[in-house]
Amino acid sequence: MEKKLHHSAAYYPELWELDQVDEDIALMKQAGLNAVRIAEFAWSRMEPELGKYEFDWLQLVLDRLHDSGIGAILCTPTPTPPAWLSETYPEILLINKLDRRMTHGSRRHYCYNSPTYRRLCAQIIEQLARRFGRHPAVIGWQTDNEFFCHVEACYCETCKAMFQRWLKEKFGTIENLNHTWGTHIWSEYYNRFEQVPLPVPTATLHNCSLVTAFWQFASQSMVNFQKEQLDVIRAHSDQPVTHNAMPPFHHLDYDDLFADLDFGAIDAYIPVEKWWRAIYEFDWMRRKCSRPFWVMETDTSWTGSVASDNDPTPRGFTRMKGLTAYGMGGQGVSYWLWRQQRTGCEMNWSSVITAWGKPTPGWDDVRTLSSAMPKVEAFLFDAPVPRAEVAIHYSNRSRIMLDVEPMTTDFKFYDTWFDDGYKPLFATGVFRDVLFESALVDGYKIVYTPFLPAIDPALLEKMKRYVEQGGTWIIGPMTGYRTPDHTVHTEAALGALEAFAGVPVVFSFPVNQQPVKVKLAHGATAGAKHWAFSFGDLKDARSLGEYTSHPAAGQCWGYEKTIGKGKLIHTGAGLDESSQTHFLRIILQSAALATLYDSTWGTTVVPRKGNSRQGFVISNWDAKGGRVKLPHPGVDLLTGRSLSGEIRLEPCEVLIVEIK
Amino acid sequence: MEKKLHHSAAYYPELWELDQVDEDIALMKQAGLNAVRIAEFAWSRMEPELGKYEFDWLQLVLDRLHDSGIGAILCTPTPTPPAWLSETYPEILLINKLDRRMTHGSRRHYCYNSPTYRRLCAQIIEQLARRFGRHPAVIGWQTDNEFFCHVEACYCETCKAMFQRWLKEKFGTIENLNHTWGTHIWSEYYNRFEQVPLPVPTATLHNCSLVTAFWQFASQSMVNFQKEQLDVIRAHSDQPVTHNAMPPFHHLDYDDLFADLDFGAIDAYIPVEKWWRAIYEFDWMRRKCSRPFWVMETDTSWTGSVASDNDPTPRGFTRMKGLTAYGMGGQGVSYWLWRQQRTGCEMNWSSVITAWGKPTPGWDDVRTLSSAMPKVEAFLFDAPVPRAEVAIHYSNRSRIMLDVEPMTTDFKFYDTWFDDGYKPLFATGVFRDVLFESALVDGYKIVYTPFLPAIDPALLEKMKRYVEQGGTWIIGPMTGYRTPDHTVHTEAALGALEAFAGVPVVFSFPVNQQPVKVKLAHGATAGAKHWAFSFGDLKDARSLGEYTSHPAAGQCWGYEKTIGKGKLIHTGAGLDESSQTHFLRIILQSAALATLYDSTWGTTVVPRKGNSRQGFVISNWDAKGGRVKLPHPGVDLLTGRSLSGEIRLEPCEVLIVEIK
Amino acid sequence: MEKKLHHSAAYYPELWELDQVDEDIALMKQAGLNAVRIAEFAWSRMEPELGKYEFDWLQLVLDRLHDSGIGAILCTPTPTPPAWLSETYPEILLINKLDRRMTHGSRRHYCYNSPTYRRLCAQIIEQLARRFGRHPAVIGWQTDNEFFCHVEACYCETCKAMFQRWLKEKFGTIENLNHTWGTHIWSEYYNRFEQVPLPVPTATLHNCSLVTAFWQFASQSMVNFQKEQLDVIRAHSDQPVTHNAMPPFHHLDYDDLFADLDFGAIDAYIPVEKWWRAIYEFDWMRRKCSRPFWVMETDTSWTGSVASDNDPTPRGFTRMKGLTAYGMGGQGVSYWLWRQQRTGCEMNWSSVITAWGKPTPGWDDVRTLSSAMPKVEAFLFDAPVPRAEVAIHYSNRSRIMLDVEPMTTDFKFYDTWFDDGYKPLFATGVFRDVLFESALVDGYKIVYTPFLPAIDPALLEKMKRYVEQGGTWIIGPMTGYRTPDHTVHTEAALGALEAFAGVPVVFSFPVNQQPVKVKLAHGATAGAKHWAFSFGDLKDARSLGEYTSHPAAGQCWGYEKTIGKGKLIHTGAGLDESSQTHFLRIILQSAALATLYDSTWGTTVVPRKGNSRQGFVISNWDAKGGRVKLPHPGVDLLTGRSLSGEIRLEPCEVLIVEIK
Repeated sequence: MEKKLHHSAAYYPELWELDQVDEDIALMKQAGLNAVRIAEFAWSRMEPELGKYEFDWLQLVLDRLHDSGIGAILCTPTPTPPAWLSETYPEILLINKLDRRMTHGSRRHYCYNSPTYRRLCAQIIEQLARRFGRHPAVIGWQTDNEFFCHVEACYCETCKAMFQRWLKEKFGTIENLNHTWGTHIWSEYYNRFEQVPLPVPTATLHNCSLVTAFWQFASQSMVNFQKEQLDVIRAHSDQPVTHNAMPPFHHLDYDDLFADLDFGAIDAYIPVEKWWRAIYEFDWMRRKCSRPFWVMETDTSWTGSVASDNDPTPRGFTRMKGLTAYGMGGQGVSYWLWRQQRTGCEMNWSSVITAWGKPTPGWDDVRTLSSAMPKVEAFLFDAPVPRAEVAIHYSNRSRIMLDVEPMTTDFKFYDTWFDDGYKPLFATGVFRDVLFESALVDGYKIVYTPFLPAIDPALLEKMKRYVEQGGTWIIGPMTGYRTPDHTVHTEAALGALEAFAGVPVVFSFPVNQQPVKVKLAHGATAGAKHWAFSFGDLKDARSLGEYTSHPAAGQCWGYEKTIGKGKLIHTGAGLDESSQTHFLRIILQSAALATLYDSTWGTTVVPRKGNSRQGFVISNWDAKGGRVKLPHPGVDLLTGRSLSGEIRLEPCEVLIVEIK
Repeated sequence: MEKKLHHSAAYYPELWELDQVDEDIALMKQAGLNAVRIAEFAWSRMEPELGKYEFDWLQLVLDRLHDSGIGAILCTPTPTPPAWLSETYPEILLINKLDRRMTHGSRRHYCYNSPTYRRLCAQIIEQLARRFGRHPAVIGWQTDNEFFCHVEACYCETCKAMFQRWLKEKFGTIENLNHTWGTHIWSEYYNRFEQVPLPVPTATLHNCSLVTAFWQFASQSMVNFQKEQLDVIRAHSDQPVTHNAMPPFHHLDYDDLFADLDFGAIDAYIPVEKWWRAIYEFDWMRRKCSRPFWVMETDTSWTGSVASDNDPTPRGFTRMKGLTAYGMGGQGVSYWLWRQQRTGCEMNWSSVITAWGKPTPGWDDVRTLSSAMPKVEAFLFDAPVPRAEVAIHYSNRSRIMLDVEPMTTDFKFYDTWFDDGYKPLFATGVFRDVLFESALVDGYKIVYTPFLPAIDPALLEKMKRYVEQGGTWIIGPMTGYRTPDHTVHTEAALGALEAFAGVPVVFSFPVNQQPVKVKLAHGATAGAKHWAFSFGDLKDARSLGEYTSHPAAGQCWGYEKTIGKGKLIHTGAGLDESSQTHFLRIILQSAALATLYDSTWGTTVVPRKGNSRQGFVISNWDAKGGRVKLPHPGVDLLTGRSLSGEIRLEPCEVLIVEIK
Repeated sequence: MEKKLHHSAAYYPELWELDQVDEDIALMKQAGLNAVRIAEFAWSRMEPELGKYEFDWLQLVLDRLHDSGIGAILCTPTPTPPAWLSETYPEILLINKLDRRMTHGSRRHYCYNSPTYRRLCAQIIEQLARRFGRHPAVIGWQTDNEFFCHVEACYCETCKAMFQRWLKEKFGTIENLNHTWGTHIWSEYYNRFEQVPLPVPTATLHNCSLVTAFWQFASQSMVNFQKEQLDVIRAHSDQPVTHNAMPPFHHLDYDDLFADLDFGAIDAYIPVEKWWRAIYEFDWMRRKCSRPFWVMETDTSWTGSVASDNDPTPRGFTRMKGLTAYGMGGQGVSYWLWRQQRTGCEMNWSSVITAWGKPTPGWDDVRTLSSAMPKVEAFLFDAPVPRAEVAIHYSNRSRIMLDVEPMTTDFKFYDTWFDDGYKPLFATGVFRDVLFESALVDGYKIVYTPFLPAIDPALLEKMKRYVEQGGTWIIGPMTGYRTPDHTVHTEAALGALEAFAGVPVVFSFPVNQQPVKVKLAHGATAGAKHWAFSFGDLKDARSLGEYTSHPAAGQCWGYEKTIGKGKLIHTGAGLDESSQTHFLRIILQSAALATLYDSTWGTTVVPRKGNSRQGFVISNWDAKGGRVKLPHPGVDLLTGRSLSGEIRLEPCEVLIVEIK
């Protein structure tokens, strides 16, 4: 993809008269957009009847866009099979957990494993890619749209048979499955793979191993479905391909999904009061994919559907969000949506222009972002985001496991991961990368691995090597206590991890209403959360704190230990948020392992560093204004101001400071 | 119907031995009742097997009632098909949204579109009307019972095919439907009407236009079902017919339903803490139907089912409720129920007498109401309720649209309509009529139209004429922003309404957690609610306030404008309740357009005015007592007291004051 | 069963390698266990294919247990049919209320009325009992596991046909059913038994009589299913049989179920903050069965499933719970479970040892309980729990009726029974027995009957005789107002009970948000709860209080009356908890009918009395410590301390005091 900053919006010319295209493009130019995303729901417009293709409208649109210097991310229209397709091949319709076959008229109502559906998808993509794969307006591709959004998984007979075959490939023999899953429990024992049920609702819970395996299967099925799309696209186009991932709402293994893709993309709908989740999303997209990324969807002011539950974002928020996305490594920011829908069920979503072609509340921010971009574009390419000193693991495989078995009723993966996992690290002021389990860890000073119930043998080997060669690995809370097959270790609480650490777990217990206190080695007292492990027999390890509450009173809460040239830091339970932040900050500071930026909460600092240029992107996210201590004097490229020392930011202000 | 006040109860002689009828009638006389409602669930008693009719029991009951001077509202027994019917014709059973066929043993388990069911209903009604249509005890009819209560709509194959035909009649061609509904969205596009699905649950939302159309279809189907019943009844009886409407809980277009009926009837179960909803219900029934109305069901003390969630009403409440119903134009008050059920699932509902024939907690109030009636009956007929100066539109078509698309998550039609629509107007102290959209508006000084998302072209024409000829039309909040097909206008935010007003909408945005402030022209500051519109370019209009919050800070919140001989008052957002009341009171007062009665909250004033007599009905509803400033001195017909100036009312006291 | 205290755990050797049995047994000996419960889910291990039996593993386990002096409660494995069974005979799968057929992979997914399933159950039990019925390790049997846990009832076609036959047997003719249930209500009227539906969800509620009858049928079906199991077991074994009852969560008539069993057993999972529910459970199991009982399942520290919602119990709680269970008449305490599950969906439940064979947080308590047992065992057998002076009726038939018709929305049977029924009596300090309706009442000074909507004629006769011969019967709240067929009495509010009492009920009404006050004869003022009855015309009865609130202001709340040699105390409504306790305490004290122990809340006293030895078991349950006034000086057998007067207990301390 061309090295430039893209400013884009989702464009649905298929919903309007074609003679309106010129007006739309004129308005896009006025808004300063240089790209659109297009066609992800337009199958019925491309193929109104089986085998009858109509692409002239799209040709016209792409031609006009190109004439105006606007590029297009072209999408495969597979999230929405047309009515004739659902009617002719009802077997392609997804069946949900309650055995209900989806009907036409919505989206994602297809079975991603249906051979018929896959064949018809390949055909329409073939037509699309063949005709437009080398069209000069096309600057990239998107597969489908937000995989797994709105549907949990398909439970049809096709999926059932494929799941059973998938298990057969995984386990070889039914005896192996029976032994691994311990199926004599509740007489689940299977004589043949064909007896394994889908985990549909029944009298009470299914075996955790079954449920986890089923969701892994569903995720791999979707990745395979995408793989088939990629093969067709790449046969006809050299442009890079992505998929617009949702935040970690779903049971989709993005580590797998993005392995096949050329660049990252995230749909980032961020309420201002949870602004720091955007930071996570940009961190995730930047490093996980190790490639440029797009914010493929974001609102210009609020999100809608048939009922909005949020407010217009503050003045300047959308501009700040866009600049910070670029500042954190993004090469594209695309709004959902360009022109307000005139029909359907998302009519009251914010947009760039209204259904009657007038500016919306977000318009000003879109324009001011456009006018800011030329001032910083060269700098951002000259001074890319450097590798961070600290990384944190994120795994959607953990999401599956912790949804299947949350351990305590207050554990909600999405919220807990953000509030108790990522946020305390972020709040130390350190700049950080987010890593998939498969990512390389070489070069990081610290790797932090919270909330990863099962540590895959490959990951453990990699991390052992990492520690032995000098890395610092922070493990926990709630890491390593399950096998990848979602069972309990039987040689020790944490299995091979415990063997590596050499420090035995003593107790493992829930923390619910009753407070469980921890006295930390650095003097503070904190409250443990969720599920706790205590340690015994530290030998040459150094205690980092001990529990002072029953049932683990007097037992060790966490320890650090030198292994090879590196260090293991292992905590038995998460702490209340401020204690967890404080604990991590002490580790980062005491070892002088990482730079901690000094800014008030709500204001973020991102370093940029190239061969000849360097600086910082500083943003006020909480719309309250803030302060930052500038690490080096410099010049704000947006205003030309020279800056040094402690700086005040206005609400939603962004500074892109180059060190001169 | 005879010009007299009816005092009645629901009577189920089919559930008891016939030799108990005399005891029941003796007790009714003691209670002072002069009417009963009868037979709405008695199909199995009338036709215990297909074609085997048994009416002698009913003959006996009606004869005895007539002998005792007690009239009867006779009901069609169609809400409850007998077991033999469901068994013989299972296709008549309603299928709900979750594709579940209803079973026998409850009520409303039939498909109102089933040709078989309609045929069998016509037969039993024919038998009933032929035999009793001219019985002297029969003073009126009720069709079925509480249409749509307990069931949302039927989703069976018959309904599906009829819905598709209904769409064909409405749109003519599938292309017209596709264009109107914008079906290329999400590739919903239909090749044939036969592809249009029912809006059953699927992966996510259906097109709003589809859902709205389906509920309109269901409503019209029920109206048609009633129409067939009316034809049969009227062939054999000259007595007036009604239906006992529920408050606006359901997706039933009462504007249509009552157009076919001779008098209004409402089932009014009012908890004392929401007492003012009764006022709305009586207003609605009086003017909407422009005819006498009955309170066809009301509790004597509390409501029940298998678990009651409310308390016995205060002493005097039931008497006051009845007198006020008469005072507001009612000609009948009927309790549910006469004798406590001895079986079934409503055994613990309050009644007039217990299952063992003794007085209940409500008995005293029933008796004291009976003894009050003769004192006021002549006056009430001599001095009817006059047309109000102010009217407010109420539309169940809006309920459908706002249930399909509530715009913000806090918008609950039933509560919002009452709390933010009707209540602020009522709270000004003005006497008001409630109008269907189809009602004539001539003669009103002010018409207020809040929460009407789509203004039908016919309504708009009527209101334009109304304004041009001198009326004042208050529009908004949340009025006119959708087309009747539930889509967005594309020429301007409010389409033809905006063209008429001549003042453009600038922004349209949700108001959720974040406060949006309005500075009103009269000096006060208020908070906007739900969904806001801002205006620009007022030209010759006068601003009534402006927003002071992002994103519309500095833009106009509302305006007034002279058009022809009249005035348009247009507000862009509803205000918090007290501000909305204050705003409306200023409008009413400044123009001296309407009389505002001066009473404490909880005490209501209703004017009565005939050729030679006039006065007021004054009621304390909140059971706390209250004060009222009597507009004219007069005499309380209930006690003979002369009254003038400021009066104190005891808890639940009623004054029926004639001006002498 | 041998007269000894059993200390046990649920043991699942079928889930582990057999060579681990020796390690497990060694650890059991270390923990001091002398029993296990075994095999309730092991069908697939016993019969991996139809007719292929494998029992050698169980032989080995039982042999080894016996060698080590550990007894076994052997279970029928019928809660979990193996996969081959569900696959071969899908008709045996339970169909739930929503018409959903359960799938394999969980538990209790069978229809208890399926003839096929019953036949296969009889076969496997025959095999099991034949082989092990006289094995010396086997000290008793358990049928199935927690009947009705996780499933409400089966709604399959078999059940439907059997229910209709059951009704035919009960009512003889359909006319009798129609009349009893009053089926002309809502035209429910049935022409034939074959028309009677199951009470599945439909448009709205079913007739209460139908729903109650269906749940009675389901309960009796389960009892019959158990009966078939008992016949097979007893043909091959002389050991006593029980079933592990749940607390009253389900619609199972334990009065019926335990009539067939040799000893009682309860699964008691008690959160410390609701500790007094354990007391109820032990009282219930002791007297209801009039036989020794086991706590067949209890946690060592917390309960789990895939998400725990509770905390580890305090130090000493598990030991105290066990000692108190023995102290209240228990002869066995068995943990769930021995070794933490390594797979399935209950991996994070507390246990005695971890999956890797190490102590858990509960281990210490298990051990200290074991070491305490020898000190008290002889005393507990020499001085059994005496019959109490006071008894309280408990009926699961009431649970059915009050679940079908809770009368007020705040009435939740389980909580209300405990908080408003049992707890106020318990809180007086009296020692009490809990009785089934069928139990003999001779010998009790007082019998208390709250929350029993329908008094069966047999019970009424028994209680009449009881009162006439000198007993004191406390009736109410909410007792006697329905017939056993779940209908309303028609001769008087309370039917035959009212005739017996001779005092008429005046009003009957709900108590929800609005306070209803009662002025008690002893001077205090209290608030009534749930549903209230008022009395009139006391004649020779003495008022115990009167209502001061509408609608019953001035009417009698309760009365006492001498009948024969005894007394009837009848209350019209329950009171707030402390008033109810106070009221009961006054009755108990004034008549000097019963000993009231004097201890702080959270500390309990249980008397023990034999021919030559007597004393008390005193326990601190709330883990806060407490005080007790020792009725007689004595010696604590656990510590040897002499005790007298007022004693302080440490948190979770137990004293087993023998009066010397």
